[in-house]
Amino acid sequence: MAITLYDLAGTESDRRFSPFCWRTKMALAHKGLEVETIPWRFTEKDKLPQPNQGRVPVIIDDGRVVHDSTAIAEYLEQRYPHHPSLFGDAAGKALTRFVQNWTEMVLQPGLIGFVVFDIWRHAAAQDQEYFRKSREERFGTTLENVVKDREARLPAFRDSLAPLRRTVERQRFLAGDASAYADYVVFGAFQWARAISDFELLAADDPVAAWRGRMLDAFDGIARKAPAYGG
Amino acid sequence: MAITLYDLAGTESDRRFSPFCWRTKMALAHKGLEVETIPWRFTEKDKLPQPNQGRVPVIIDDGRVVHDSTAIAEYLEQRYPHHPSLFGDAAGKALTRFVQNWTEMVLQPGLIGFVVFDIWRHAAAQDQEYFRKSREERFGTTLENVVKDREARLPAFRDSLAPLRRTVERQRFLAGDASAYADYVVFGAFQWARAISDFELLAADDPVAAWRGRMLDAFDGIARKAPAYGG
Repeated sequence: MAITLYDLAGTESDRRFSPFCWRTKMALAHKGLEVETIPWRFTEKDKLPQPNQGRVPVIIDDGRVVHDSTAIAEYLEQRYPHHPSLFGDAAGKALTRFVQNWTEMVLQPGLIGFVVFDIWRHAAAQDQEYFRKSREERFGTTLENVVKDREARLPAFRDSLAPLRRTVERQRFLAGDASAYADYVVFGAFQWARAISDFELLAADDPVAAWRGRMLDAFDGIARKAPAYGG
Repeated sequence: MAITLYDLAGTESDRRFSPFCWRTKMALAHKGLEVETIPWRFTEKDKLPQPNQGRVPVIIDDGRVVHDSTAIAEYLEQRYPHHPSLFGDAAGKALTRFVQNWTEMVLQPGLIGFVVFDIWRHAAAQDQEYFRKSREERFGTTLENVVKDREARLPAFRDSLAPLRRTVERQRFLAGDASAYADYVVFGAFQWARAISDFELLAADDPVAAWRGRMLDAFDGIARKAPAYGG
């Protein structure tokens, strides 16, 4: 039976833009597991199965509810040990956490300043007020203000990708010859951006763009086929 | 027979401050291999065994010369496969490269601005002119100028450690319950700084400082016992 995934959507129910849900979708594909997604909006807290923390991803696997992308990855690894590993051995799993922490402390905070207004534009009508209010409180200014100097911030953002760039110019994936969960965590951030924004974050000749292309091709191109802008 | 390591030294021949040599010393200890170090100065290019690139670390193991810290780690892993692994499996090894690239693209470039004048102060008399000239060309200003605003740069430097901090506050080592090469790469940078500078980079309650303490204690405290300043 397919696993059910509650997946963030906006006005268009097939445009899916949560970086955390993309981690989970890539992890499910890596494990070769079937999934059925249910589009979910920011304000539909009461539509999620229990337990949850009011956020997606949440999965239901054979009656079991698991929430939080990190917990889901660990659950899948433990529940499906004979499917391809998401982490490799104990060192691989621990080092994946460093990549995840870099993604959450450097990459995603960098990205949000480019795309937060585009997220609002794509959010479902009933979500827009909630989204604007919560994010403007966080930034201390309007969403329009956050993104208005994004062209000027692009060089510094690209510089911040240096550790990723050097890695994927020297090996095909963060996890080596084949992709694994570390790749999906970083890719989730880029797929988030390209799903809701036509702002091109990467130069065409950036090794990071080439790696992103390899990720878009993975698993029969599930990410490439999903509604998104260029890049 | 002990492995021979050419190890960067300054005026005091037992104060060893190369971050790359520290990677190698920790890796040798991890593998449980004996080492005899030979103090080497920046300008003693002709004293290194062939082949080399005019830099340390260089090791001689049973007549074999290996240079470059990354090449040495791979050599040790291959040559001593039954000693504790430096990387774990293929994913662990690939992900170690991301940590290394973060260290070389973010951590070490951040650190040099705090300690470059202290390196010069500790460099051997015959190395000081070479060191000053090459580094001042790189920075485009005097060594004194590079470090003069270091207090003001400290908050941004500490912020840049966020991915490391979050990782080591949630697990004992980058590589998990036990340290491995990824830890030695990052630690090499901190040991470089503390070996030649009394400038305290970390707040006392920083989880990174606690991790550094665990690294200083590793392998009977080889790094803690080495000549260095506090921290």
